Amino acid sequence: MTGELFRRLRAASGAIWPAYTRHDFVLRLARGDLPEAAFRRYLVQDYLFLLHFARAWGLAIYKSETLAEMRRAQALVAATLEVEIGLHIDYCRGWGLSEAAMAHEPEALETIAYTRFVLDRGLAGDRLDLEVALAPCVVGYAEIAAERMADPATRRDGNPYREWLDMYAGAEYQSLAREAASALDEQFARRGGEGRFAALAGAFATATRLEADFWTMGLAAAR
Amino acid sequence: MTGELFRRLRAASGAIWPAYTRHDFVLRLARGDLPEAAFRRYLVQDYLFLLHFARAWGLAIYKSETLAEMRRAQALVAATLEVEIGLHIDYCRGWGLSEAAMAHEPEALETIAYTRFVLDRGLAGDRLDLEVALAPCVVGYAEIAAERMADPATRRDGNPYREWLDMYAGAEYQSLAREAASALDEQFARRGGEGRFAALAGAFATATRLEADFWTMGLAAAR
Amino acid sequence: MTGELFRRLRAASGAIWPAYTRHDFVLRLARGDLPEAAFRRYLVQDYLFLLHFARAWGLAIYKSETLAEMRRAQALVAATLEVEIGLHIDYCRGWGLSEAAMAHEPEALETIAYTRFVLDRGLAGDRLDLEVALAPCVVGYAEIAAERMADPATRRDGNPYREWLDMYAGAEYQSLAREAASALDEQFARRGGEGRFAALAGAFATATRLEADFWTMGLAAAR
Amino acid sequence: MTGELFRRLRAASGAIWPAYTRHDFVLRLARGDLPEAAFRRYLVQDYLFLLHFARAWGLAIYKSETLAEMRRAQALVAATLEVEIGLHIDYCRGWGLSEAAMAHEPEALETIAYTRFVLDRGLAGDRLDLEVALAPCVVGYAEIAAERMADPATRRDGNPYREWLDMYAGAEYQSLAREAASALDEQFARRGGEGRFAALAGAFATATRLEADFWTMGLAAAR
Repeated sequence: MTGELFRRLRAASGAIWPAYTRHDFVLRLARGDLPEAAFRRYLVQDYLFLLHFARAWGLAIYKSETLAEMRRAQALVAATLEVEIGLHIDYCRGWGLSEAAMAHEPEALETIAYTRFVLDRGLAGDRLDLEVALAPCVVGYAEIAAERMADPATRRDGNPYREWLDMYAGAEYQSLAREAASALDEQFARRGGEGRFAALAGAFATATRLEADFWTMGLAAAR
Repeated sequence: MTGELFRRLRAASGAIWPAYTRHDFVLRLARGDLPEAAFRRYLVQDYLFLLHFARAWGLAIYKSETLAEMRRAQALVAATLEVEIGLHIDYCRGWGLSEAAMAHEPEALETIAYTRFVLDRGLAGDRLDLEVALAPCVVGYAEIAAERMADPATRRDGNPYREWLDMYAGAEYQSLAREAASALDEQFARRGGEGRFAALAGAFATATRLEADFWTMGLAAAR
Repeated sequence: MTGELFRRLRAASGAIWPAYTRHDFVLRLARGDLPEAAFRRYLVQDYLFLLHFARAWGLAIYKSETLAEMRRAQALVAATLEVEIGLHIDYCRGWGLSEAAMAHEPEALETIAYTRFVLDRGLAGDRLDLEVALAPCVVGYAEIAAERMADPATRRDGNPYREWLDMYAGAEYQSLAREAASALDEQFARRGGEGRFAALAGAFATATRLEADFWTMGLAAAR
Repeated sequence: MTGELFRRLRAASGAIWPAYTRHDFVLRLARGDLPEAAFRRYLVQDYLFLLHFARAWGLAIYKSETLAEMRRAQALVAATLEVEIGLHIDYCRGWGLSEAAMAHEPEALETIAYTRFVLDRGLAGDRLDLEVALAPCVVGYAEIAAERMADPATRRDGNPYREWLDMYAGAEYQSLAREAASALDEQFARRGGEGRFAALAGAFATATRLEADFWTMGLAAAR
């Protein structure tokens, strides 16, 4: 069954995982009562995040050992630069945020911490280290959206954040997340071994903590 | 006159610079009324910082183009791993902090943000990018300590933080900082040009902001 | 006028440049009397080269400072992985070389030397260092093919290597090479300065020498 | 018993290993009838090699996960920059080669290939990948010298290369090589697993092949 390494990493992170996936930001977004200022802050920083996300997958191309690995990373860079950033810009425009304004916004401490932590893991270690540090984001967002869509407390009609939930709960993103989890298994078989698990779990937990801090940063804008 | 690039970078960072060098943490440390909890928090995170500082200079060895450049970076790694970390551990012991306890403390968001920002600048760019991102720390600490020691408001007798000020205001550290500033000039002449200034100033300002956040993190422990 | 930095680098490399662009391998290919064994050896190693070429542009994505820079590097990775490698495989099949056979061939000393030299320049330096090390290949191939197609000594009818010349002399590749040369100028303005020229010229000359060695490796297969 | 991974890698490289350790260059050096021009060529390129060897261990500092790992890498950089390069320069002076002359000599194709291959393995992979690529050099030289000193065909008296054999067969270097082999075991336990063996063995074999090419380059100077 695929996703085995991801499940072990998630289990090893203990309470850190739900503190991220069931963060107040997420629960309020699902209920539709997240302050708009919090969401706008999140959207702007998520735009800045995407630039480094594309850099991380560019690095993954460099770190590939097979043509298949290279092509998967290249598809993710292309999806980010050609599709996601565009969709994000369109979506943000609907929230009154222009691309120029977002590009000039300084990166928040939390954005810097998560993105550069990921890049350093990827450069100091190998591609498995890089993908493990990215997993709380790539795989976690799929879990967050699916879990919230399955929750009766989630407001479906008239929820201003419904589009966000639909995107990450949708078949396309869920499938991308499953592929990312499978890739972790494949790499752990090829480059891992039990001896590596502790260090990978440590990095996964730190990355998850930094993702939770990202939500907190959003909420802080509404205080 | 040496230190020209550093002075230009500092000037370009505007109010961000004194927000770091005259941060409340620093002023209270100099007056001797910084809460001990704030200083202890700082010491623990500074220990974790030093490990990444040594990694950054290791990276500088890799990125060197001349034997002289390599030797300067190697001397800084050696000083960090063989002297500074030892002194830091001794000093912290005096504040009731054991090395084992510090090594097990999780890195604060602010520690992760500054250290990984520096490493990413160094890996994405060249050695000048790396050293510019390190300058607010390496050169800035010398300025902070010298400025405070020259300030009549600074308490010299019975100040529990006097040793910290003496170390960074001392001849040895001041000389190390001057060499670091000179190295910036030399590299800017050899690898720079006016076209690079804007990007270097942007990275310097971000690094300075992250250093100020590091002080804020210390203070937060005393709230 | 664009291509200024490339022209200066080429001029600074002196006799090293024509030793590459007018190498016996090239002249005989144009005359149509290059031994087939030499061309086959070249084709196989060029396939292995392309994998590292894609890695180099993946690294360029990571090293990008703007969205535009990222997109240009991403387009080159995509072109390499989605188009060029496929065309190369088709073309090689016409020469009796299967993809599986090429993928199992050991990399020649000359292939390792050039590809890893480029990657190290890119990692030790910045994106300009990376693109300068790639320029003898990217821009040089366009010059080689154009120069040979303009040479009356070149055999056009019945030349078994005509397709190779047509591809690199064609409008599409010539345009890609011009863009690469323009990108050098843009980066030299933004990240360079006269102080950098000597080191860039040194790396360009070494990369050119390694490209000439690549032709020599091809010829050696026919001895 | 230590050195297990090294022994497995050596066994997996098959005939590639003795083609390096019992290369004609080595056998003639031991018999004392290696042409001096071959040895001089080797010495000059070995000087250029050492600069990249120091860079590789600088990179290892950056890639360290523990203070102990950092200290071992730092000790090797220090030994290279503060001791080995100096000894090498002194030794070369005895052979009529000045440091200035060596520093201006262009790097041979073989020097570039091996050094940059190692650095790329280290950057694309993790520290284990880096140390495996360095092992044919670090551990191999100890084996080469010990094997030759145990061989009755080796000329001990009046052999102009005796000092070279004594240095690498000496207790100090043999101990350094044993530590390097132990470090491989420790890292394979901590970061490896059987799944990684095939790729590590592939890189080890390529690095060994490139080391043999380095001897061949030396011999070629005497043709």
